[in-house]
Amino acid sequence: MDPKMEPRHTIAIWVDNTPGVLSRVTGLFSGRGFNIESLCVAETMDPEVSRITIVSTGDEQITEQIIKQLHKLINIIKVVDLSELEHVEREMVLVRVKAEDKSRAEVLRIADIFRCRVVDVSASTYTLEITGNHDKIRAVLDLLKNHGIQEVARTGTLAIQRSKKE
Amino acid sequence: MDPKMEPRHTIAIWVDNTPGVLSRVTGLFSGRGFNIESLCVAETMDPEVSRITIVSTGDEQITEQIIKQLHKLINIIKVVDLSELEHVEREMVLVRVKAEDKSRAEVLRIADIFRCRVVDVSASTYTLEITGNHDKIRAVLDLLKNHGIQEVARTGTLAIQRSKKE
Repeated sequence: MDPKMEPRHTIAIWVDNTPGVLSRVTGLFSGRGFNIESLCVAETMDPEVSRITIVSTGDEQITEQIIKQLHKLINIIKVVDLSELEHVEREMVLVRVKAEDKSRAEVLRIADIFRCRVVDVSASTYTLEITGNHDKIRAVLDLLKNHGIQEVARTGTLAIQRSKKE
Repeated sequence: MDPKMEPRHTIAIWVDNTPGVLSRVTGLFSGRGFNIESLCVAETMDPEVSRITIVSTGDEQITEQIIKQLHKLINIIKVVDLSELEHVEREMVLVRVKAEDKSRAEVLRIADIFRCRVVDVSASTYTLEITGNHDKIRAVLDLLKNHGIQEVARTGTLAIQRSKKE
């Protein structure tokens, strides 16, 4: 089965902000041969608590098992499978792209159209900050590729539950 | 020694996009009692290669050792300590904040001043996307705190090397 066809899960995990927790969480996925498509972790408003967002693709049943096992790990506070709830997904990308001669104006036009922010400039490059959903990010990167991407850094998917509409 | 006073390192690591690598990388840090302040990982332009950005604080000598050991791990392609180079750091945050009655206009004003994007709206909340450096993010969250933050999700620091100025 093409792994692209397997269901994609976006999972939010609140953990104690202590060494070793992240390693145990990622170990749980790799122990079952599950690749993590993207992951980001940082502190919350409470510096004692970190929040992990993981995107992983794989068999539905094994995903369920992994979520059950996550609940049992120590230092894990809460696990939410956002895929089952209404949620917003956004990603941030920093990309340094060649911008020389007539390419220079065109790269800025692309940045403008997609509401990117220019975060660094040199005589021959621009570094852009792009945010958006997966499709938008792909569209921008596809356009910039023609001009020569020197380096790209992505956060991976960040997700938050939508507020219930009254 | 106050851990806040220890040097802060931002490290970029390019790895093969296979299960287990992330777990080995994070294990190397936790094995030495090093806490990872933030981490994000996602694919690069080459889907076979992922790029990790780690921020970690700790003793200078042990950090050097960790970087040396990272180089020796299998499936690790390249390790760069960005702290030693000119680089740009940005973070993205999604925050769902209460916005009722007169609070509603004020939250939007804050969003406007700090160039946040509204990514979700309900009758009693706004969800904002904030990007910027560590200080800006803290400033916005401090202001929003007064209105009641319901949930916050952060990517942690994403970093890219600056282009050399000619």
